[in-house]
Amino acid sequence: MLEELKQQVLEANLALPKHGMVTFTWGNVSGIDRESGLVVIKPSGIEYDVLKKEDLVVVDLSGNVVEGKLNPSSDTPTHVVLYRAFPEIGGIVHTHSPYATSWAQAGRGIPALGTTHADYFYGEIPCTRPMTENEIKGAYEAETGHVIVETFEENRYDFVPGVLVYAHAPFAWGKDATEALHNAVVLEETAKMATNTVAINPQVGVMQQELLDKHFLRKHGKDAYYGQQK
Amino acid sequence: MLEELKQQVLEANLALPKHGMVTFTWGNVSGIDRESGLVVIKPSGIEYDVLKKEDLVVVDLSGNVVEGKLNPSSDTPTHVVLYRAFPEIGGIVHTHSPYATSWAQAGRGIPALGTTHADYFYGEIPCTRPMTENEIKGAYEAETGHVIVETFEENRYDFVPGVLVYAHAPFAWGKDATEALHNAVVLEETAKMATNTVAINPQVGVMQQELLDKHFLRKHGKDAYYGQQK
Amino acid sequence: MLEELKQQVLEANLALPKHGMVTFTWGNVSGIDRESGLVVIKPSGIEYDVLKKEDLVVVDLSGNVVEGKLNPSSDTPTHVVLYRAFPEIGGIVHTHSPYATSWAQAGRGIPALGTTHADYFYGEIPCTRPMTENEIKGAYEAETGHVIVETFEENRYDFVPGVLVYAHAPFAWGKDATEALHNAVVLEETAKMATNTVAINPQVGVMQQELLDKHFLRKHGKDAYYGQQK
Amino acid sequence: MLEELKQQVLEANLALPKHGMVTFTWGNVSGIDRESGLVVIKPSGIEYDVLKKEDLVVVDLSGNVVEGKLNPSSDTPTHVVLYRAFPEIGGIVHTHSPYATSWAQAGRGIPALGTTHADYFYGEIPCTRPMTENEIKGAYEAETGHVIVETFEENRYDFVPGVLVYAHAPFAWGKDATEALHNAVVLEETAKMATNTVAINPQVGVMQQELLDKHFLRKHGKDAYYGQQK
Repeated sequence: MLEELKQQVLEANLALPKHGMVTFTWGNVSGIDRESGLVVIKPSGIEYDVLKKEDLVVVDLSGNVVEGKLNPSSDTPTHVVLYRAFPEIGGIVHTHSPYATSWAQAGRGIPALGTTHADYFYGEIPCTRPMTENEIKGAYEAETGHVIVETFEENRYDFVPGVLVYAHAPFAWGKDATEALHNAVVLEETAKMATNTVAINPQVGVMQQELLDKHFLRKHGKDAYYGQQK
Repeated sequence: MLEELKQQVLEANLALPKHGMVTFTWGNVSGIDRESGLVVIKPSGIEYDVLKKEDLVVVDLSGNVVEGKLNPSSDTPTHVVLYRAFPEIGGIVHTHSPYATSWAQAGRGIPALGTTHADYFYGEIPCTRPMTENEIKGAYEAETGHVIVETFEENRYDFVPGVLVYAHAPFAWGKDATEALHNAVVLEETAKMATNTVAINPQVGVMQQELLDKHFLRKHGKDAYYGQQK
Repeated sequence: MLEELKQQVLEANLALPKHGMVTFTWGNVSGIDRESGLVVIKPSGIEYDVLKKEDLVVVDLSGNVVEGKLNPSSDTPTHVVLYRAFPEIGGIVHTHSPYATSWAQAGRGIPALGTTHADYFYGEIPCTRPMTENEIKGAYEAETGHVIVETFEENRYDFVPGVLVYAHAPFAWGKDATEALHNAVVLEETAKMATNTVAINPQVGVMQQELLDKHFLRKHGKDAYYGQQK
Repeated sequence: MLEELKQQVLEANLALPKHGMVTFTWGNVSGIDRESGLVVIKPSGIEYDVLKKEDLVVVDLSGNVVEGKLNPSSDTPTHVVLYRAFPEIGGIVHTHSPYATSWAQAGRGIPALGTTHADYFYGEIPCTRPMTENEIKGAYEAETGHVIVETFEENRYDFVPGVLVYAHAPFAWGKDATEALHNAVVLEETAKMATNTVAINPQVGVMQQELLDKHFLRKHGKDAYYGQQK
């Protein structure tokens, strides 16, 4: 079941090392079939170069395994919390990509400094607050999802498809696993550029609001005119 | 028509990922046939690994599509403004290469710090002023061209074949698409070295004027003696 | 003799250049057979692309060559000191991987800044004190081992499987050569992220203790639940 | 003539892009046959991927072309000045490798910060003084050689086989072209580590003198014991 979704989730997982996004097994991609409410996700701790479609695990929106012989990613509870809270998303990527992780460790959101950022993220990529002792000692992975959700007002997650979890690492999402992967790669590239930008000019401010508007809306929404959309 | 030019523009586009200059589709190269006033440019949003010669779009100097089934790069109006204002250039490259983009985001021109820079750029690679709200909300891509042109006095574009657009990214040019690509790669390398140089020595000043003269003129103009020119 | 151990040590050595951990011959991996007390180690100054299983050298826990035609790594006395002092380890990796070496040169331990670190190292990766003139002029390589051992209280080496030797470079270890290699790669990745983190936020503090506990114990010890362990 | 030397010089030139040391044609390697006083050097401006043995140029110690159809590297006068002044060297490498060039642009010598440096360079890798207007406008490339020579007292070049030319880039040398290439790669790696080290700890001082002595002499001179030397 869900063969097409599994294929897409597999390809997005395999694209992570190709884009230099992961060391060892530090990353996972999932995708959801909204009709059935079933999520396909990478198994925990399996190396990318041996990962096969049949290794993927299917879980429901409570995180219970529905199909698959392996343990799902230990981050599965985070994924399902996000799928429940963000109804418009269809794919999620979690990595420890080095530059984005450095911003998460620094406890700083990535400010909108230029059009590369603005083409995909409509404003700062926020960093969550630190998780509390209770959250960490409790249902940690689910609480990670809750602290992410808390960081986004209303439907803002649709305009800023990524986040940094404080002292941890980034999550990114999109309408499906492919777009989520795309946004995760952009987030890393944006983090790299921001690292250099603040080194070159420590007093740098955010970009002009009009330029942010222009670039985001040139690619998103009903008036978009980038690419081959007609 | 323009088969030779298309081949050169295709090859320069395909060289962008080879030189690590682009993520996804973030870049475009064009070339102009000065006799006919026709410009060959990459289509918008097409991945490099599937780009073929017949995908390239031909536009006139007003940016109207003359040949091709795909939409031209959304940056086409910037390219044609530059071709009209800079009569000596035959090729243009736009990328979001990471180090040059970081300087653009920092709002700083890249100072001439050493001979690597001086071999290709005769002085600072300038950063444009911020674009105004009117420019951004108006004919944005054409206005991007105008703000670049405004940054260069007279024929100075011929001595400094590249620019950083404030909070955006670099453009580079040359006598044809191949040379423009070459200058874009050098601009990125120069930006990388400048980033490290100011980290190592925040008080660094520009290089000696005589050394700048020597290296630029060793490679350019009637007294050049670098390479196999006789 | 020790064919299986030799194969594992060979593979871990060959993995060093694959992970971008070494320039030229700057690194070595060893493994120990605890029953016989014999250590298999890379020969000194041999390039990785010509290294074969029969080149590996077998030494005893005093560092005497027991088998092999080549000189063992000049760091062999350091390895054997560590094997004698840290009874739980089965493999050791020494490299000059660039980011970890930069922290060693800076004379600073790598603080626990995020979960990437916490997944493998239970607290700061310490930097040793500077070695004294007597130690350097004496049995230098053995003394390097002693100054490492001195840096770890009691069985703490089992929770923090790596160290930076002041003005020198990192050592990492694990239950066997494969795990030691894994930890060495993580140490380098952690050092890279820490370098960027302190650049982004020079005032950054260490991560929450609870989060450090959570991530380390999620992967280690009897309550671990990461991966496919049952 | 000089077939063996040409082969070695060719291989050292081709190794430059393999080690990530050059962009485009920015680098050249030469080697000398001390008996005949003839120098084999890369031709000017030829791409590495088309460079063949028969393209190499033979010049005498005054820089006159003795054999070859192409122009020798424009840096040839620098090479011959160094061969005349430094009688113990047999090969020279010049590159614009990014980190070493950044230190040259910063006008700072690379301090001895750790054993990676000490294994090859016995103390700071110096940066020359700025060249004067007269030197630059005169026999520039030969004067570049003279300012390098002036930077080294007596036979110190034999202990520190490399230099940074102010606002320009590094030169490295060795007993032959192969060793010169080796030292150039180490110089770049050392420059990278030093860049990160001063970022992590801006107050860092030089390493212990005894440790510098130990590591340099472990690899060089009559008491060396690194590698397979007997």
